[in-house]
Amino acid sequence: MVMQRWKLTIEYDGAYFHGWQKQDGDLPTVQTHIERAITKFSGQTVGLHVAGRTDAGVHAQGQIAHFDLDDGDRAMNEFEMAKALNALVGSKFISVLKAECVDANFHARFHAKNKLYIYRCLRRTAPPALSNGRVWHLRKDVDVEAMRLAAQNLLGHHDFTSFRATECQAKNPVRTLERADILTSSYDDHGGVEIQFHFEGQSFLHHQVRNMVGTLVHVGLGKFTHSQVKDILAQKDRTKAGPTAPPDGLSLVRIDY
Amino acid sequence: MVMQRWKLTIEYDGAYFHGWQKQDGDLPTVQTHIERAITKFSGQTVGLHVAGRTDAGVHAQGQIAHFDLDDGDRAMNEFEMAKALNALVGSKFISVLKAECVDANFHARFHAKNKLYIYRCLRRTAPPALSNGRVWHLRKDVDVEAMRLAAQNLLGHHDFTSFRATECQAKNPVRTLERADILTSSYDDHGGVEIQFHFEGQSFLHHQVRNMVGTLVHVGLGKFTHSQVKDILAQKDRTKAGPTAPPDGLSLVRIDY
Repeated sequence: MVMQRWKLTIEYDGAYFHGWQKQDGDLPTVQTHIERAITKFSGQTVGLHVAGRTDAGVHAQGQIAHFDLDDGDRAMNEFEMAKALNALVGSKFISVLKAECVDANFHARFHAKNKLYIYRCLRRTAPPALSNGRVWHLRKDVDVEAMRLAAQNLLGHHDFTSFRATECQAKNPVRTLERADILTSSYDDHGGVEIQFHFEGQSFLHHQVRNMVGTLVHVGLGKFTHSQVKDILAQKDRTKAGPTAPPDGLSLVRIDY
Repeated sequence: MVMQRWKLTIEYDGAYFHGWQKQDGDLPTVQTHIERAITKFSGQTVGLHVAGRTDAGVHAQGQIAHFDLDDGDRAMNEFEMAKALNALVGSKFISVLKAECVDANFHARFHAKNKLYIYRCLRRTAPPALSNGRVWHLRKDVDVEAMRLAAQNLLGHHDFTSFRATECQAKNPVRTLERADILTSSYDDHGGVEIQFHFEGQSFLHHQVRNMVGTLVHVGLGKFTHSQVKDILAQKDRTKAGPTAPPDGLSLVRIDY
């Protein structure tokens, strides 16, 4: 029996799934869709190991997962593997962008060196018809410069307890945030503005990105000053920070190994 | 009785409607949704006049329509009108971007000076999970330079019979195409390329944009040479041109008056 480790690069629209992770019951998740597709053509039951679990409603443009398959006498090449998975995955909202044979030591989660998350907001009065489920709709004006100043306080090595979900299971709340940029661009011909938060780091706590965005938007709305964010971080108390931003705007864009 | 003419700028995701136009029966269309919203707050039955009807599956980022309302003693301002329509339109896939009081002579269709349609294709092997319903998925390589050369043949004042739907009701098949540009950009981190066709002109025949795109993609795939497109145009015969591109990739982006 020769086991081959496979690495998958996956795009999905999180609006159609109860998150990445397999759930009790028969709720549709990205993991169950892909595991079933693998079983369909191989007859083997596999367990997918993912780089970064995503919540219901959160998207991915470059999620990474790995699994082991007994190649037996029907070894597939990389192109065939991606094609078979896309044919069998059972949802047009999941796409396997790439399937690669990797070394048996490769680990999607433990070997990830850097992750890029992008959170999209749409600032305009009218609701988003075409970006429904893909952006956080901000009806009121936000001060982008204040948010940029506030974001600088989050950069670096910190205890992010104030920004993690109370149910977060990580033993250590310390993380290093390598990048916290805010980009703006014109969204339409009628004054709509897209505001993107780009966060990079090796790993993030549960809800960390959404809680950072919720807090920064509070700064943009004038509910916190930009320097207050430094205090919020120091207080290590989730109740001091802003609300959790909705999942819609978030996408796991790229993971580097 | 004082009638006020209103101009609306509308965004919608065409995947959720049987086109713009009101249909027999009770099929959901963009027009019926908006007309019902107007009736709900005004008690008046109105008829919307649209700049450019769109087919089922075709999107709009800047569709324009007008209607007349008896202002009576409850005149609304422009901001209130847009807000009321968005609250009552009954679909999160329609958004009124702007409502404006205009002169009683304004006509959404007859006064349109220029329309911009953008058609999006996604060139990659893996299917589009996040752009599902928004792009035409091209699995095979296309020669963009050949498509650009071919598109030049369509520019200007021509009889576009070869590119109009057989059921097109326009009396005159002559139109002036002012712009036919093809833009490419990187779509993802895995080699995916977005190819956009930008077409501008005062008016278009039924299916003209989709038939031009279908024919240009045939050129890109090597099924026609770029100079053949000139002959196809001259033949004034729909059966000589390429297939009708799917509605998914098309959006009516902007109309100038």
